[in-house]
Amino acid sequence: MGFVKNGRIIYSEIPTGYPVPGKTLVYDESQTIDLDNEPLHGGILVKVLVLSIDPYLRRRMQEPSPLDFFPPFKVGEPLDNSGVGVVVRSENPSFKPGDHVLGRFLFQQYLVLPDPKLRKLDNREGLSLSAYLGVCGVPAQTAHHAWREYAQPKIKKGDVLFVTAASGAVGAIVAQLAKADGLKVIASAGSDEKVEYVRSLGVDVAFNYKKVSTREVLQKEGPINFYWDNVGGESLEAALEFAAQKATFIICGMISNYNTKEPYNVKNLQQLVWREITFNGFLVGSLMPKYDDEFFATMPARVAKGEIKYKEHFVKGLENAGQALLDVLSGENFGKSVVVVSEE
Amino acid sequence: MGFVKNGRIIYSEIPTGYPVPGKTLVYDESQTIDLDNEPLHGGILVKVLVLSIDPYLRRRMQEPSPLDFFPPFKVGEPLDNSGVGVVVRSENPSFKPGDHVLGRFLFQQYLVLPDPKLRKLDNREGLSLSAYLGVCGVPAQTAHHAWREYAQPKIKKGDVLFVTAASGAVGAIVAQLAKADGLKVIASAGSDEKVEYVRSLGVDVAFNYKKVSTREVLQKEGPINFYWDNVGGESLEAALEFAAQKATFIICGMISNYNTKEPYNVKNLQQLVWREITFNGFLVGSLMPKYDDEFFATMPARVAKGEIKYKEHFVKGLENAGQALLDVLSGENFGKSVVVVSEE
Repeated sequence: MGFVKNGRIIYSEIPTGYPVPGKTLVYDESQTIDLDNEPLHGGILVKVLVLSIDPYLRRRMQEPSPLDFFPPFKVGEPLDNSGVGVVVRSENPSFKPGDHVLGRFLFQQYLVLPDPKLRKLDNREGLSLSAYLGVCGVPAQTAHHAWREYAQPKIKKGDVLFVTAASGAVGAIVAQLAKADGLKVIASAGSDEKVEYVRSLGVDVAFNYKKVSTREVLQKEGPINFYWDNVGGESLEAALEFAAQKATFIICGMISNYNTKEPYNVKNLQQLVWREITFNGFLVGSLMPKYDDEFFATMPARVAKGEIKYKEHFVKGLENAGQALLDVLSGENFGKSVVVVSEE
Repeated sequence: MGFVKNGRIIYSEIPTGYPVPGKTLVYDESQTIDLDNEPLHGGILVKVLVLSIDPYLRRRMQEPSPLDFFPPFKVGEPLDNSGVGVVVRSENPSFKPGDHVLGRFLFQQYLVLPDPKLRKLDNREGLSLSAYLGVCGVPAQTAHHAWREYAQPKIKKGDVLFVTAASGAVGAIVAQLAKADGLKVIASAGSDEKVEYVRSLGVDVAFNYKKVSTREVLQKEGPINFYWDNVGGESLEAALEFAAQKATFIICGMISNYNTKEPYNVKNLQQLVWREITFNGFLVGSLMPKYDDEFFATMPARVAKGEIKYKEHFVKGLENAGQALLDVLSGENFGKSVVVVSEE
């Protein structure tokens, strides 16, 4: 094997608006690694195969705040996020060369992990490894865990869900879980092609929010008992306007606010009182201890059986990770965005 | 007794900003009533003694919306709200002349109630009747029920509460319930005199939000685990900024939004996600079946013993009810506002 370049993506400055590929996120090939002799300190050497690109990464590109639970990236250091790799060498008895491992990786081609905190993938269902970044990974855990925690205990016959960014990695799972639970599902996406895909998932009403007014759709098809918010802003405002009494809002993200200093500010928060609405803001990490076992015991099988459908958007080469993130933040991707770092 | 004037307060037009006494709410003395002979249709004749003035009344002065659970007042008809009266005549075996009754009354001096849905007050604690509109009435039920439902199950040692409008009828009870549960309580009010009163209730930090920045106080004294929101707007924004992870926000009212078409719009709702915050919007009516018995079994006794303190603001004469509401909405009152309609 010998010496090889060890490319990585460096977070090099705090962006003011959208992150700029080559400026905010810089591909760097200055480092090399000796695959045969690099000391492992009792750990493992992993070759990173696929990395996940998710909207929340933008949130970690900001000034640190002392109250922040989820720390921002450090300028000058590599990005990190969920990925799947293959073990190249190991001094740890729990791992052997060839094992596939799922976990949080630096954006780097090869990593030495002295104390690996990774899940070994047996993948008995024979899914693609990238599935563990999307439909069987954190986005699906996000959808599954919060749906179980905040929605399922309250569902009544005839309930209606509105989900935004419904062609996205999280939204598409939410829509399918809600249909499986018998809800009427109203789903929005940002292009006709995405709307067509969302419709193919079995939702009741799908629309392109850039062409059709969300307010008008909800006025006609609501009121809504559940709102899954991935975007915030005007969609949240419309959802508040057409919420049913005692509606539950699951606040998963507010992508419309991430890249602007002047976000759209919701005008009708007082509906929270008059409609007795609950907002559940959450981070999936807090729900993992409660729901991960159930998730990994059931979701890969449901996916393998075709009960849960998914769509992936592959970007080849770690050097393109910056562009991949920009595309996710601006809605240019279609399906779960995955950077293919290396072939096996 | 014979014929007497039966004055009432008519809701005569939908206000655009603050309601205008004599215009939005008009005192009308054109009706009379024969106290001896007015037919009761098997019901009772009540002389209204005290009526409650609460901020939420403003919310009911708007165009009707098909999704509204709490219907707006009808233009041309009298206002209604909680009150205490005394039975003058009765054809109903459950009530006899001289009984004190608590319930929802029209803003009118005398009422015939064919089918009275009222609570008879035995008032064994010997409280003033007006107490049943405030410290033992709906504002206190609001504080008590939501505190029991949304806060108490989550309280941990060392938790911090921030409550706005803390000299108000609801806020002052919330502050005292939280202190009784061992929380550190940060409380804001709108004048130095009100702050002094709030401090006398035993809170840890009290400040005049018109003179001191809420953000600076919360930065120093927070982060906050609970926020009781009576006002919305900038206070809510500051609370989001200095919320602890997994904080609970109890959204009771947004008085800062009620009287303006251009309310202050919160800019940092995305904190809901990053801090994993829950917003619980509620109307007390939905919690009454669960907590009313407990409340009436315990609160009057706690008040009589002096464990829960309160302050009242009396306005004499039904003709002054419009001004009383304006004063409540603009913060001119100090203590629970009660209109004294008649002496016994």
